[in-house]
Amino acid sequence: MSYARQMLESDSASTVDAGLLADTIEALSDCAQACIADADADLRENDPDMVTCIRLCLDCTDVCTATLGIVSRRAAYQDAVTGPLLEACAATCARCAEECERHADSHAHCMICGQACRRCEQACRNLLAAPIS
Amino acid sequence: MSYARQMLESDSASTVDAGLLADTIEALSDCAQACIADADADLRENDPDMVTCIRLCLDCTDVCTATLGIVSRRAAYQDAVTGPLLEACAATCARCAEECERHADSHAHCMICGQACRRCEQACRNLLAAPIS
Amino acid sequence: MSYARQMLESDSASTVDAGLLADTIEALSDCAQACIADADADLRENDPDMVTCIRLCLDCTDVCTATLGIVSRRAAYQDAVTGPLLEACAATCARCAEECERHADSHAHCMICGQACRRCEQACRNLLAAPIS
Amino acid sequence: MSYARQMLESDSASTVDAGLLADTIEALSDCAQACIADADADLRENDPDMVTCIRLCLDCTDVCTATLGIVSRRAAYQDAVTGPLLEACAATCARCAEECERHADSHAHCMICGQACRRCEQACRNLLAAPIS
Repeated sequence: MSYARQMLESDSASTVDAGLLADTIEALSDCAQACIADADADLRENDPDMVTCIRLCLDCTDVCTATLGIVSRRAAYQDAVTGPLLEACAATCARCAEECERHADSHAHCMICGQACRRCEQACRNLLAAPIS
Repeated sequence: MSYARQMLESDSASTVDAGLLADTIEALSDCAQACIADADADLRENDPDMVTCIRLCLDCTDVCTATLGIVSRRAAYQDAVTGPLLEACAATCARCAEECERHADSHAHCMICGQACRRCEQACRNLLAAPIS
Repeated sequence: MSYARQMLESDSASTVDAGLLADTIEALSDCAQACIADADADLRENDPDMVTCIRLCLDCTDVCTATLGIVSRRAAYQDAVTGPLLEACAATCARCAEECERHADSHAHCMICGQACRRCEQACRNLLAAPIS
Repeated sequence: MSYARQMLESDSASTVDAGLLADTIEALSDCAQACIADADADLRENDPDMVTCIRLCLDCTDVCTATLGIVSRRAAYQDAVTGPLLEACAATCARCAEECERHADSHAHCMICGQACRRCEQACRNLLAAPIS
């Protein structure tokens, strides 16, 4: 069990389902890591066709890292802040996934990164749709 | 002249006005710094009424830092990524400013931070409204 | 298997053992998340004795996030950059763990965070000691 | 006057000279921005000789951003944390500057970025050498 999950389960104050939050936090963290690694692997291909993929991976790392911070400060769950950022994060993950998928047949690193982005996009949408008690 | 501004002026590929981009980058960077410093100054007040302000400042730092990265990778200005994030950043800055302004009479650090947030909110909205050539 | 591990195993260019790198990346990511969550849980205690713990958790998040980025760009493993940062990260994790452990009996969130910091300190030291082929 | 400087001057608790801290914060922030922009400009050159420069710029952004956070939480100036990170940041800035300078004659963006890195390296060393009251 991850530290994030343990910490959420030790906490009775959260206004959102702890399992759903932990899933989102893990998806954001995995996606940020996958995008850092994919940008680096793309760089090594020395292929001008990879430039858009590198930039979108760097963008996606930045947005997922920020969203991870904000979602983790869950005790003060603020709709005005969390809602628009989850929307922006889902949009960025979707755009990055689309670009990674274009290269998935040629590069295993892009295929893996595209999967991490799709899972993160879905996790952001699930949290947006979750009831807040 | 800031390094960001020098670098933007040395570049002919940008699709958005270089001066407007440099203004936004400076406002984002200033706001991220002001929020880090204000969260720290708030912590020293030992006042439970500051907890929401600390959290919003930490959130605002995270969102401004991510937006700074994405706006700076301007050469691949991607509406699908930049638009929703600028919206989320403006919303976060507005919410953080509102909370800082509540404490502006008691704490100079909150007054200064509130000003940085309002300027950054406006800079994000200006960039959102800018024509892309 | 994590995305980071899958990506490392799909890559034959790395100069450091892929399993060791994946362990370090996971420990850094877990520690960054645990520190964000612990700082937030500490804030809710409304206890002036937690202020140092909050600050160290924020510091530790920042250093682990930076180290995660640099370690993940492994293909260009640069001793001049990676070595001093791994040292700084291990020192920060150790200092943060020490402070969390002071509060471990009173707060489960500090106990969990202290464990994440100790594991990350050790992972940084293991990577520093690893032979580079 | 920057928001960081205003905030430092409104604060009597700091244990390090406020002007020196504000100089360091500005140098770190400028260097982080310059490195984001230079990595992006390098990407557009479509030149395999720029790959090391891109990676070092991404590394330098990450380390400067983390150091900015830690230095800004100055009220709890912790030698055990701040010292090793300032050393790591100076080392990273020096290595990144060296690489940018290799390309300064061909690319204005690398020349500008190299200057920001050198100034930041010096600011970190100045803060390391400063007496703590």
